[in-house]
Amino acid sequence: MSANGPVRRRGRPASAEKAAGEPATRDRILGSARAEFAERGYDKASIRAIARGAGVDSALVHHYFGTKEQVFTAAVQGAFAPALGIPDLLLSGDPEEWGEQLVGYIFMIWEDAVTRDPLLAIMRSAVNNETAASIFRGLITRNLLERVAGGLDRPDPELRVELAMAQLVGTAMLRYVIKVEPIASARPEDLIPRLAPVVQRHLTG
Amino acid sequence: MSANGPVRRRGRPASAEKAAGEPATRDRILGSARAEFAERGYDKASIRAIARGAGVDSALVHHYFGTKEQVFTAAVQGAFAPALGIPDLLLSGDPEEWGEQLVGYIFMIWEDAVTRDPLLAIMRSAVNNETAASIFRGLITRNLLERVAGGLDRPDPELRVELAMAQLVGTAMLRYVIKVEPIASARPEDLIPRLAPVVQRHLTG
Repeated sequence: MSANGPVRRRGRPASAEKAAGEPATRDRILGSARAEFAERGYDKASIRAIARGAGVDSALVHHYFGTKEQVFTAAVQGAFAPALGIPDLLLSGDPEEWGEQLVGYIFMIWEDAVTRDPLLAIMRSAVNNETAASIFRGLITRNLLERVAGGLDRPDPELRVELAMAQLVGTAMLRYVIKVEPIASARPEDLIPRLAPVVQRHLTG
Repeated sequence: MSANGPVRRRGRPASAEKAAGEPATRDRILGSARAEFAERGYDKASIRAIARGAGVDSALVHHYFGTKEQVFTAAVQGAFAPALGIPDLLLSGDPEEWGEQLVGYIFMIWEDAVTRDPLLAIMRSAVNNETAASIFRGLITRNLLERVAGGLDRPDPELRVELAMAQLVGTAMLRYVIKVEPIASARPEDLIPRLAPVVQRHLTG
């Protein structure tokens, strides 16, 4: 069940659902948290508004996640879940093919609104607040950057991975956020062959 | 004179300064507008707060710039002024050297907080609001994209320029906004030689 699940009476969770549906409630809180952080920014986001958006008590948000910082961390981790498959995908293959594998996988995540929107929401929060940026930075460093760089037998592996990420982050910005044409409407099959060799060059060139 | 110029009595401009110093007042309003848009987002930004930040009447903001949308457009144009030299720079040279020229010039703009901070402020507004993104999109399309693509004798010139821009926009995001290491602290002379050939490849490869 997502943030779009059935509307419930606000204020307190029905105890039957609380017992049977903890993952659903948790997901609904995370969906509401992403929306709140994206809309109001990290500083102005409130646990109360996140609870309201999920149709639960503030106490339940604290119960599941703790502080606002911890709610944000959980929301980032949730949004990043699909991307966390990247290190395993790459490390199981030949580094000379990472460019194509990585770009193909990233477009799979991006082209589905279900996996794209949470990522964009979290990126918006991180762009606008130093605390949010710092949490975001820690998570991508530990979960993506260090693991992928660890499999790269080249000088300056972290910098290589970040320059490859920069190409992809910038493509996402222009295509999905600023929506400048023609990149916003280009087909993935026209973009992937232009991006893969450049990403490959950063990684192993 | 910039937004850091002398502090003045708030509420109404001294008429002597109004006569002699219109460009200074205008700049101060634009500096305040950038700060307000970056901090509160386009939707929540108000002409009143922009006026207050510049130490002038709201009426004077309307007098110089018109509506909120027009204030934003002027702020973007101001922030982009240094980047508007890019088309002339490139079009006067050999497209086979555009990668190096463009990346060198961009780092000159980025590495000076005076030219970088207004750009980042405007980028933050555009990331968080569709109206702001649309104004931003129109300006970069007309002032940068179309002009540079017009000098490129290759198929899909706009898409080429945008993929090159994506590499640079993403680098700015990771280096100056998210501040992930090691790219955040890398020296320009270590980044430029890695970026220039990739940008060149997008443009003419």
